[in-house]
Amino acid sequence: MKQNKIKLGIFGFGCVGQGLYYTLEQTQGLKAEVVKICIKDRTKERSIPSHYFTFDKDEILDNPDINVVVELIDDPKAAYEIVVKALKSGKAVVTANKKMVADNFEELFKIQQEYNVPLLYESSCCASIPVIRNLEEYYDNDLINAVEGIFNGSSNYILTKIFNENAVYAEALKDAQEKGFAETNPILDVGGFDSKNKLCIIIAHAFGLFVKPEQIFNYGIQNINAFDVQYAREKGFRIRLVGFTRKVGKGVVGAVLPAFVKEENILYSINNEYNGVIVEGAFSENQFFLGKGAGSYPTGSAVLSDISALTYGYKYEYKKYHQNIENRDLNLVDDFKFEVYIRRNGDLKTIAPLFDEIIEVHRSGNINYLVGTISFSKLKSSGVFEDNDAVVILSSNNKIEIA
Amino acid sequence: MKQNKIKLGIFGFGCVGQGLYYTLEQTQGLKAEVVKICIKDRTKERSIPSHYFTFDKDEILDNPDINVVVELIDDPKAAYEIVVKALKSGKAVVTANKKMVADNFEELFKIQQEYNVPLLYESSCCASIPVIRNLEEYYDNDLINAVEGIFNGSSNYILTKIFNENAVYAEALKDAQEKGFAETNPILDVGGFDSKNKLCIIIAHAFGLFVKPEQIFNYGIQNINAFDVQYAREKGFRIRLVGFTRKVGKGVVGAVLPAFVKEENILYSINNEYNGVIVEGAFSENQFFLGKGAGSYPTGSAVLSDISALTYGYKYEYKKYHQNIENRDLNLVDDFKFEVYIRRNGDLKTIAPLFDEIIEVHRSGNINYLVGTISFSKLKSSGVFEDNDAVVILSSNNKIEIA
Repeated sequence: MKQNKIKLGIFGFGCVGQGLYYTLEQTQGLKAEVVKICIKDRTKERSIPSHYFTFDKDEILDNPDINVVVELIDDPKAAYEIVVKALKSGKAVVTANKKMVADNFEELFKIQQEYNVPLLYESSCCASIPVIRNLEEYYDNDLINAVEGIFNGSSNYILTKIFNENAVYAEALKDAQEKGFAETNPILDVGGFDSKNKLCIIIAHAFGLFVKPEQIFNYGIQNINAFDVQYAREKGFRIRLVGFTRKVGKGVVGAVLPAFVKEENILYSINNEYNGVIVEGAFSENQFFLGKGAGSYPTGSAVLSDISALTYGYKYEYKKYHQNIENRDLNLVDDFKFEVYIRRNGDLKTIAPLFDEIIEVHRSGNINYLVGTISFSKLKSSGVFEDNDAVVILSSNNKIEIA
Repeated sequence: MKQNKIKLGIFGFGCVGQGLYYTLEQTQGLKAEVVKICIKDRTKERSIPSHYFTFDKDEILDNPDINVVVELIDDPKAAYEIVVKALKSGKAVVTANKKMVADNFEELFKIQQEYNVPLLYESSCCASIPVIRNLEEYYDNDLINAVEGIFNGSSNYILTKIFNENAVYAEALKDAQEKGFAETNPILDVGGFDSKNKLCIIIAHAFGLFVKPEQIFNYGIQNINAFDVQYAREKGFRIRLVGFTRKVGKGVVGAVLPAFVKEENILYSINNEYNGVIVEGAFSENQFFLGKGAGSYPTGSAVLSDISALTYGYKYEYKKYHQNIENRDLNLVDDFKFEVYIRRNGDLKTIAPLFDEIIEVHRSGNINYLVGTISFSKLKSSGVFEDNDAVVILSSNNKIEIA
């Protein structure tokens, strides 16, 4: 793949596929040619000449002329099959499918090693923000302490409407769906599932650990109510859905949870469908990356950037993983402590004893809350997260500690 | 330079040199060995063994064992000589010296081409923020419209003190100097000279133009007074010292000036010694990078990142420059229009006629101001910038247009 001319086979011609096509058309520097585009829907009208299209995936996968496959379809299972077959045929692959990557990460890593062929997925993680590339290349020798941020545009759009425009949750969600920011099944966004997939990808490139999405806990913004919003406002906070991973000794912790953020925290200023990623390096200190986390052109441009990187033989080296194997030092752990706010409509009898330390107690009629330090693993098995009358929100001055 | 073991000769062991030494010590992945450190001051006590040190630059430059030279001295002229000799001897060079790079950019580019040897300078541009690397690699095929940001930590520290803590300019400057953020000659920081050097480096990697610092206009924050601050506060603005470059048709404009920023602008939230860079791509839309723009460890970690990149043969390709040569399309121009606020203690008789359009006029006793659209080249030759009773501040809703 050294300065080869890129001949592209693309799977999917939805919003991102079209974004890619048009960015490619307007890009002077890159000599990449679209050979075929494989689509599913035979009835939809298409905006470019029909000779580009095929309905048969093997017309791309078996075409020896095509050296780069771009996978942009929704279905993670079908995507996985396409990607594996392409890699095994020696074709480089660029994908935007975060769920597919997160679900099959270690397998995909191994296939890359075995077949010595690159798989790039920058666009899968916060679209236009160059998260993976920077973690791989720029921080390869800085000791990373933590990565945290807003990884989902739809839920951030909803929280922005609630905090900046006094919208209520249901309205804000409807608005996000109408604007095309939210999935039809909004739980993927607002429940933190989408953020979690991105966090898995980040954990691999920041700490060299391949973790399954099932190993990472996610909790969404659905239970946040007017009382919680009022509480945040009175303290000068906003609420953001935050994914975080942090090295604590030999442990790596990671989860997706709503969090109170102070004005001094840069995430406070991240509004609407933007994503923001904070990288805490031992030496570089805090770095922050902001950009649109979704959308046709932002995602298309990240895909394009991966395609361009392939022209000069770029591949992920997974340096942190190799360092980890050598040193056998880092493991995902669950037994950490953090500071949380738990509000419940109803009594706190079963919740209060869970806390190691209680900083603030509030009782007013039926609405009660506690703020304090709690063990994450204890909280997880307590049933609080499943209690629809309760909400758990990370405190704004969190210090995560190994329990 | 393919996976070669790195043998380092370092020039300078001040704040950044020491930062580098200690980050190197704590870094597992990178096998780089410090062979010699060339220093000037024979009297200063050093924190590491004396066998590392030499006072003779040729002990590094003539040592065939040393394959990478790291240049971290203050004096741009001496630095240039060291860097040129190192490159011509086939040694890769990493430098943090923005003035040296900006002053000699095209020459340094040509020497790299002629001797086929890499010169990396990520740390010269906003220290820990990976600006150059991202412009080179990630946006190599996105059409960049503009880059703007806060490129100087000291002046931003001063503006933060003024806006967030009601400090007056002289106090804030003294505070910055005591904290070690400001140069002994503060005009380099507050006058926009330092920002301008960084802007020159950015222009080369964003638009492929090598411009001399003398070609770029800079105007500082020294004339901003309590009236201007009050004006900003009433409108809900803050003032930031902003470097910007923007493509307007076939023209590229660039300058450093104080600017009013609204709360919606991410630069509003950039406080203290932080730097922030906004990249406006045609497809990726707005991206933002934030980090510490100075300091021992943030700069040291960027130098380390460059050293690490050398182990896998990395060099800047100057892709935009080569595209420009092919297409001969972009030129630095001066005849653009922007919206400015001009306040003057005294009459506005000579200033008012300069405006193409006046949006706001204010007269109160001896303090007067105008807001409106003006031609930059006309303003530059008008003497307003040299008038110590006046100040020019970019309007918050700027649209830069070719005149």
